[in-house]
Amino acid sequence: MSESGPTPDLNETTLSSRERLAQARLHVVLFEPEIAGNTGGIGRTCVAAGAALWLVRPLGFHVNDRNIRRAGLDYWPHLAFTIVDSIDEVVNHFGYDRLWWFSTKAKASYTDVTYASGDALVFGPESRGLPATLLNQSAVFDRAVRIPIQPEARSLNLSNAAAIGVFEAMRQINIGF
Amino acid sequence: MSESGPTPDLNETTLSSRERLAQARLHVVLFEPEIAGNTGGIGRTCVAAGAALWLVRPLGFHVNDRNIRRAGLDYWPHLAFTIVDSIDEVVNHFGYDRLWWFSTKAKASYTDVTYASGDALVFGPESRGLPATLLNQSAVFDRAVRIPIQPEARSLNLSNAAAIGVFEAMRQINIGF
Repeated sequence: MSESGPTPDLNETTLSSRERLAQARLHVVLFEPEIAGNTGGIGRTCVAAGAALWLVRPLGFHVNDRNIRRAGLDYWPHLAFTIVDSIDEVVNHFGYDRLWWFSTKAKASYTDVTYASGDALVFGPESRGLPATLLNQSAVFDRAVRIPIQPEARSLNLSNAAAIGVFEAMRQINIGF
Repeated sequence: MSESGPTPDLNETTLSSRERLAQARLHVVLFEPEIAGNTGGIGRTCVAAGAALWLVRPLGFHVNDRNIRRAGLDYWPHLAFTIVDSIDEVVNHFGYDRLWWFSTKAKASYTDVTYASGDALVFGPESRGLPATLLNQSAVFDRAVRIPIQPEARSLNLSNAAAIGVFEAMRQINIGF
């Protein structure tokens, strides 16, 4: 696992957050996120929820992008945060049993599964969602969930989807509520 | 109640959405919203949830602001949407018994109350939240709820907070899930 972004200041943030990463009561994994503002917004949500944020390369932006900081405001330094090179690192770290894969193609509603402390919620890129190569694996599809939406809406904004998923998991785990 | 934005195209959208507004299974009310992008994002969430969006003047942006459309993407034409001049119009329309006031100052968690179909969730402006003049009214404070967050995070992004509230209400009402 590589924990560093390319800039010194974010390296510093990342290193100081290593303990918080290990202790986080929930994790959000963004697989190949494309839009800096969404990642920044999700970082703010993670701080609010006491969750850690994992980004899986390639990213569609530089982690020092000012949009991340703008959306995340002054929350970024409080964020338990890491960047990894592939989804395999995430699977190896958590094991399939602690991962939930959010996809519009999933059968189960995100409200019908039972989250546990330490679980990780995985979200795909804004434009295409989690790839079929992942979802076609039974260990993934068995734990894929969707957020039910009206047919007029193709999808939710990624930052909103992550907030909805994180706070449903928080509600179930009943920490901080 | 005035349903119109200042531009012809948004008037058209608004007029065509009048029926959907009356039939919406849930409503989101933004009291004096300041940031166009948040309102646009919340519009997208409303379309996804089958909820209607009410904006209470003054707004911190023009309703034809391209940022609304950008954040709302192609979802805006599907949105049941209205703009009113004061919160009194909202209270008169719904009655206190169908309103929920989201505030960091509330005692009850948003997950501990029981939402009903047709209820409206009210959110304050990004920079200051719902004003004390409102929250000090017992009919308001009795139905004020907060989204529990860690102390390091002063607040959630407004668009994320609305998404969290709307989808908790949807989960409870059990429509579309």
